[in-house]
Amino acid sequence: MAATPHIVIIGGGFAGLWATRALASAPVRITLVDRHNHHLFQPLLYQVATAGLSAPDIAAPLRHILRRQKNVEVRLATVTAIDANAKCIALDDGATLAFDELLLASGATHAYFGNDHWAQHAPGLKTLDDALDLRRKLLFAFERAEAATDPAEREAWLSFAIVGGGPTGVELAGTLAEIARETLKDEFRNIDPSQARVRLIEAGPRVLATFPETLSEKARRQLEHLGVEVVLGTPVKDIGAEGYTLGDTFVPAKTVVWAAGVAASPLGAMLDVPLDRAGRVLVQPDLSIPGHPDIFVAGDLASLMRANGKPVPGLAPAAKQMGRLVARNIRARLRGEATAAFTYKDYGNLATIGRMAAVVDLGKLKFSGALAWWFWLVMHVFFLIGFRNRLVVLLNWSWAYWSYQRAARIILGDRDDPSAPDRT
Amino acid sequence: MAATPHIVIIGGGFAGLWATRALASAPVRITLVDRHNHHLFQPLLYQVATAGLSAPDIAAPLRHILRRQKNVEVRLATVTAIDANAKCIALDDGATLAFDELLLASGATHAYFGNDHWAQHAPGLKTLDDALDLRRKLLFAFERAEAATDPAEREAWLSFAIVGGGPTGVELAGTLAEIARETLKDEFRNIDPSQARVRLIEAGPRVLATFPETLSEKARRQLEHLGVEVVLGTPVKDIGAEGYTLGDTFVPAKTVVWAAGVAASPLGAMLDVPLDRAGRVLVQPDLSIPGHPDIFVAGDLASLMRANGKPVPGLAPAAKQMGRLVARNIRARLRGEATAAFTYKDYGNLATIGRMAAVVDLGKLKFSGALAWWFWLVMHVFFLIGFRNRLVVLLNWSWAYWSYQRAARIILGDRDDPSAPDRT
Repeated sequence: MAATPHIVIIGGGFAGLWATRALASAPVRITLVDRHNHHLFQPLLYQVATAGLSAPDIAAPLRHILRRQKNVEVRLATVTAIDANAKCIALDDGATLAFDELLLASGATHAYFGNDHWAQHAPGLKTLDDALDLRRKLLFAFERAEAATDPAEREAWLSFAIVGGGPTGVELAGTLAEIARETLKDEFRNIDPSQARVRLIEAGPRVLATFPETLSEKARRQLEHLGVEVVLGTPVKDIGAEGYTLGDTFVPAKTVVWAAGVAASPLGAMLDVPLDRAGRVLVQPDLSIPGHPDIFVAGDLASLMRANGKPVPGLAPAAKQMGRLVARNIRARLRGEATAAFTYKDYGNLATIGRMAAVVDLGKLKFSGALAWWFWLVMHVFFLIGFRNRLVVLLNWSWAYWSYQRAARIILGDRDDPSAPDRT
Repeated sequence: MAATPHIVIIGGGFAGLWATRALASAPVRITLVDRHNHHLFQPLLYQVATAGLSAPDIAAPLRHILRRQKNVEVRLATVTAIDANAKCIALDDGATLAFDELLLASGATHAYFGNDHWAQHAPGLKTLDDALDLRRKLLFAFERAEAATDPAEREAWLSFAIVGGGPTGVELAGTLAEIARETLKDEFRNIDPSQARVRLIEAGPRVLATFPETLSEKARRQLEHLGVEVVLGTPVKDIGAEGYTLGDTFVPAKTVVWAAGVAASPLGAMLDVPLDRAGRVLVQPDLSIPGHPDIFVAGDLASLMRANGKPVPGLAPAAKQMGRLVARNIRARLRGEATAAFTYKDYGNLATIGRMAAVVDLGKLKFSGALAWWFWLVMHVFFLIGFRNRLVVLLNWSWAYWSYQRAARIILGDRDDPSAPDRT
C-alpha cells in the first residue's frame, strides 16, 4: 500500500482555507501552515481599523474551523524556504516538511513602489495587527489635537490623508469622515472633531478604478457628501513625519494611511519561476507553475489572465474559486487524470463608502447609495465565517447604526507607540 | 466673581470616574487625567486574558462616558510629578495643571516582592494590554506544544502555573482548565490539550483568603473538579524562563502567571506623606491626606481601617463609594462646610471560579456552585458600563456557555512576542 499523499498548503486565507475544505474527503494528509492562528475576513478589516468591530469579530482560529476535518494538521509557523525540486519547505521553528503536492496561497502585502521609507509614516492595512495599529494612530490623533496648544500643531493632528482610491482607501476615508463628524461629536472640549480634514488622494483619474466610470463618479460624490475631500490625478511625491507633498505643495498632516499599493507575498519569489511586476506568480491555466505540475499558486499571489483579456481580480470570491479548483486538480492528479483550467465566475463587484453609501456592479445591474449599502451589508454578514460572529457583527453594526457609536474605540498597545514614550 | 474652582482627578477607574460623575452638577471645572483612553471594567479582565471577551467588551472610552458632562475635560496623559504645596501636577506632554482640589485615584499595579526579575517570566494582569499579552502567551503555549518533537519540551509547554490564590488567580486557573479540557478539544493532532497541567499555587493555607473558610474550601473543591491542581502553603522560590521552583523542587513550565501581589501606583509616593507596606497612602477618615485637606486619595491607592479593625478592601464597590464621598467632601469644602468620614458599606463578596462554579458571601447568606455562578454573572453584566456592552457580553457568554467556545481566541501582536522572532 502506498503512503497517504501529503499535501502542504501555505496560507489560511480564502484560497488556502477553501482548498483545504474541498479536500476534506480526499485520501490525503494535509498540513496547513500559517503565520497567524486565525483565518481573517479581510473585507471587514477596515472596520477594525476604524473601531467599528473588535479583532475577534472578523477572525476565527484556523484550528477551530478545521477541528472536525481529521485529515488536516494546522501549523502556526512562518515559511523560510521552498525547494520546488526537492519538494520540501522549511519553517522558522526548524522543521522541514516534505510534500507530494503544494499549494502556495500566502497572499499579498503593502507596496510602497520603491519608497519603503514611507512605511513608517504611512502604515498600510493587511493584517489584524495593522488594523489595531491604525486604530490607535487614528484615535491618538484626536487626543493629540485636543492637548495641543499651538494652532498649527492642532491643525496638523486634525489633518488626515488616505493615499489610494481603491476599495480600502474609499472605505477608510468615508468611515473616518463619519467618525470625525458624528461619533466624536461632543466628546472634546478644545477641538471640534468635525473640523478634521479627511483627504483621499488618488494618482489616477478616478476612485474605484475597477468599477464602471459612472459608479466611480457616484462614489466620489458620496464621499464628498460624507465630508471627504477627494483629490484625483495627483500622485503623492513624498511622505514624512510632519506631512506629505502633493505636486509641489507640502501639506502638514500627522496621520497618513497607505492604501495605494499591493505587492505579492515574498514567498512567490522562492519558487524560482517568472513573476509579474507586482511579484505575483504567473501561473498556468490550471494554476500550477511552469515545470512543476505538483505545485499550485492561488489567491492574491497568482497572476492569471481571463479569456476576456482582463486579469483575475484580487478579490475574495476569486481566491475561493481558485482554492476549490486547486483541490479538484490535486484530486485529479492523485487519480492520474488531467487537470482543469481555471475560469473565473464573476458575480459582481461591491464597495462600501460609509453610512448608507456604497456602489454595486452586478454587470447588467448597477446601483449606488442606501440600497447598495444594505446589499453590501447583507452580503458581508452572510459570508462571515461562523454563526456567532455574524450575530455579534450584526449587533455591533445595528448599535453603531442607530447610535453613531463605534464600540471598539479602545486604544491598545500604546506602550509601543513611538509618539507616546512614557506610557508603560 | 471668583474663578470657577479647578478639580483635577487622576485616574479614570471606579474611584475617579464615580467622583467625576458625582460632581456633574457642581460649580466646578474638572480635568480627568488618565494614561489610557478608557475606563476598564477590571472584574472581567481575566475573561479577556482567557479569550472569552474582546478588549472593547469590557472597556468604554472615558470621553464617551463623560461627553454630556460639560464641566469635565478628559486628558490622555501620564502624570510625571505632583507638587502638593504648589498645588499643581506635571504631565508627560509638558503641560502643568494647577488645581484647587485634587483626587488621586491611580490604583494599583503588580508587585513581585523584591523579585522584579520574575516579571518577564510571570506577567501579571492589570491592564487591557496585560490581558492581551497573557492571551497570546496562553494560546501560543498550546501551539508550541503541538509543534514540539521532544516529549519533555512538549510537557513543559503544557505545564501552566498561576501564582496567587486570590480572586484573579482562582478565575484564571479555573478558566484555563476549562479551555484545556473543553474549548481546545479536537483541535490539535499531536497533543491532547486536556493533558495540560494547570496548577494554582498559594503560599497561604487557603485560596480566597478574604472569604470565610468554608467558602475557601468549597472553592478549592470546585477548582479541583474543573481540573486544577491546587497547591497550598507553599511559596514559589524562583521563577525563570523554563519553570519555577516550589520548595526544593524545580518544575518545568513555560507559562507562569503572576496573580500574587498588588502594589499601589507609584504616584502615591509623590505626595510625600506616610504610606503603608504596599505603598498605599494612609488617608484621613475623610480620605484627604495629612496636612493637605485639599488633596484626596481614593480607590486601591488609599489605605484606611474600618471601625471593625479590618481594612477597606481593594474592590470596585469600595472604590465607587470612596469616589462618591470625595465628591461630597469637595462640594462641602467649596461651601466652607466640614467634610464627612468614609464608612464602607459592605454588600458582600463574590468570586467566580469557572463554568457554573463560584462562591458568594453576603454576610449571613453564603453559597457556592451553580447558583453562585448565576448570581455572579447577573451582577457583573448588570454593572458593566453601557447598554451595548452588556448585550454583547451576554451574547458572547451565552455562546461560550452552550458551545464551550471562546470567541476571542485570536493571537494578536505576535510580532512583539520574544518567543516568535520572525513573525512580521
